[in-house]
Amino acid sequence: MSIHFQIETSAGAVRLAKLTTPHGEIETPVFMPVGTLASVKGVPQDVLEELGIQILLGNTYHLYLRPGVETVRTMGGLHKFMSWDRAILTDSGGFQVFSLNELRKVSEEGVTFRSHLDGSSHFFSPESAMAAQIGLGADIIMAFDECTEYPAERERARASMEMTLRWAERSKKYFEEHTREVPWASSQLAARGSQQTQSLFGIVQGGMDRELRRESALRTVEIGFPGYAIGGLSVGEPREMTREIIESTLEHLPADKPRYVMGVGTPEEIAEYARMGVDMMDCVLPTRAARHGLLFTSEGKVSIKQARYAQDASPLDPKCGCRVCARYSRAYLRHLYASNEVLAQVLNTIHNLTYYLDTMRAVRHAI
Amino acid sequence: MSIHFQIETSAGAVRLAKLTTPHGEIETPVFMPVGTLASVKGVPQDVLEELGIQILLGNTYHLYLRPGVETVRTMGGLHKFMSWDRAILTDSGGFQVFSLNELRKVSEEGVTFRSHLDGSSHFFSPESAMAAQIGLGADIIMAFDECTEYPAERERARASMEMTLRWAERSKKYFEEHTREVPWASSQLAARGSQQTQSLFGIVQGGMDRELRRESALRTVEIGFPGYAIGGLSVGEPREMTREIIESTLEHLPADKPRYVMGVGTPEEIAEYARMGVDMMDCVLPTRAARHGLLFTSEGKVSIKQARYAQDASPLDPKCGCRVCARYSRAYLRHLYASNEVLAQVLNTIHNLTYYLDTMRAVRHAI
Repeated sequence: MSIHFQIETSAGAVRLAKLTTPHGEIETPVFMPVGTLASVKGVPQDVLEELGIQILLGNTYHLYLRPGVETVRTMGGLHKFMSWDRAILTDSGGFQVFSLNELRKVSEEGVTFRSHLDGSSHFFSPESAMAAQIGLGADIIMAFDECTEYPAERERARASMEMTLRWAERSKKYFEEHTREVPWASSQLAARGSQQTQSLFGIVQGGMDRELRRESALRTVEIGFPGYAIGGLSVGEPREMTREIIESTLEHLPADKPRYVMGVGTPEEIAEYARMGVDMMDCVLPTRAARHGLLFTSEGKVSIKQARYAQDASPLDPKCGCRVCARYSRAYLRHLYASNEVLAQVLNTIHNLTYYLDTMRAVRHAI
Repeated sequence: MSIHFQIETSAGAVRLAKLTTPHGEIETPVFMPVGTLASVKGVPQDVLEELGIQILLGNTYHLYLRPGVETVRTMGGLHKFMSWDRAILTDSGGFQVFSLNELRKVSEEGVTFRSHLDGSSHFFSPESAMAAQIGLGADIIMAFDECTEYPAERERARASMEMTLRWAERSKKYFEEHTREVPWASSQLAARGSQQTQSLFGIVQGGMDRELRRESALRTVEIGFPGYAIGGLSVGEPREMTREIIESTLEHLPADKPRYVMGVGTPEEIAEYARMGVDMMDCVLPTRAARHGLLFTSEGKVSIKQARYAQDASPLDPKCGCRVCARYSRAYLRHLYASNEVLAQVLNTIHNLTYYLDTMRAVRHAI
């Protein structure tokens, strides 16, 4: 058993659990900030620790291209490479490759795609995606899936779902045969007195069709994983549809395993989904919005570039306890952003991550 | 008396002194990092404090354009605006305007220049440069000078020096008549129980001519300032010439006043100049080089972009105690830089500043 998921309390659909990984224990429901290239853009790891981040998400596609799996493996895995001793989850690369649009070609065997960096040709199969994720060495890795485009005809969504199921079996088979190849399998585990290595989660697809989602969930559970994700969302569908698919799919996932919704959402959404019984979520929104000067506060969204903040001496969010709100004024943050100062990105990201983490803490404390 | 300069120890030319400003006591010789736009690019103020930075330099020209003097004055001055409670020095804008080359026009009255941002036309005179610096509210401000280009004919250098002397008198006159207008003159001073406001330093010019420099020094001292800077260096002259001008000019500056060399230099140079009796220096080199992946270490300069560091697990500088060297490998820093991650700039800047501050600490401790 590579992870341990222990539900401690629940109230209605929402539950409070402890997820034990080889790199520490996570309190769920949890939000996972995105550290695409082994870095949460602009924020040093000691600050991430201070923020109380329990688990980071890394993007397999990006790390595969830079610095490359072999480099990370040689350096002892992602944790050691980026000096982050808490949990990490890597996505399968499926969604990222899906985003390449015209640069990819899908077949039963896998996906041929061109690098967004230099146009070079690459191939991801369930097996090679697993090999990449084993080499990167995250605590939780994801089965290789096909993210169905939106909108999609029912037959197209079914065919895509069927292939994701076949890929899930191939992912699991490869993973089970190679799981001891994780870079820290011997040394770091010995130090921790544990035999845990990685955990592989399955991904439910099925487009925006509740019936296909139900079937995908049941058959993915039949294959058997220690955790399940709902993928294929945030692909352009209306927000209400996202909620409906999450709600209907959750019913068919085992209550005693972690349930992860990929790529969502706003602060209101992640709180809502957590209350619906989702345990894990990740999203680029807090970090990406920060880079565009869009800040989440207890008084609503703030676009810090606006001239109205130019001489505003008040903190960004008077109810926020982060080091940014404790020290700097809106006027200063506005000046940094308007002047293209790098510190704008650093401070904005620290604040937005705090807001997201506080949102999840509030959900947990409400129980 | 706005600052107090107390020499504590000396050995040969080098001396260890305490410079007391309205915002704290500075141990000299001191290196001042450059925070052009009220930010040391990429590094939060709490980290700057932790690094032991005693005094920051702000650029009047840049702050005048963004966020504008009126905004900073309204916000209570630079210290409050950027949340930095230690000392700040602003340059006069003269050197920055000098760097605009084709965008400026100099007359006896002052300099007309075009903004590098939007081409708008502006005018700096000794009086308006003083007004700007009083509004910004740094602890130490600089007389408005003309930075003589290199190379320059002797007659041109003399004419330029003579105008700088006339501008020094005008700067001093305006400053003395308006010194109580500094934004924190009442409130912050009352809190500190001090009547100190700003101090105005004079600037020695004279091109690369030792005789003109001597005359400029003597006549600037005759006008009378609480500190003296040697300006007009680092304008393309050979390094040996810089050293000679500093050495010969220092002789003519009073030993009981702080002596500041503007815009220098490499770690070796700042150590050398400190040992020659220079008390204060500023330079963009540590921060600018960091942004280009050029790092100063006890083993020499490291260009972190090089492929040889791709799998180098060792710290950047094994003898450095900074948080970057304590936590991250050369391989990780190389990856961040090669991937254009913003964290590269943040971490590289923290390290290079540490190296510069350690260099000055070593000079002080050698006494």
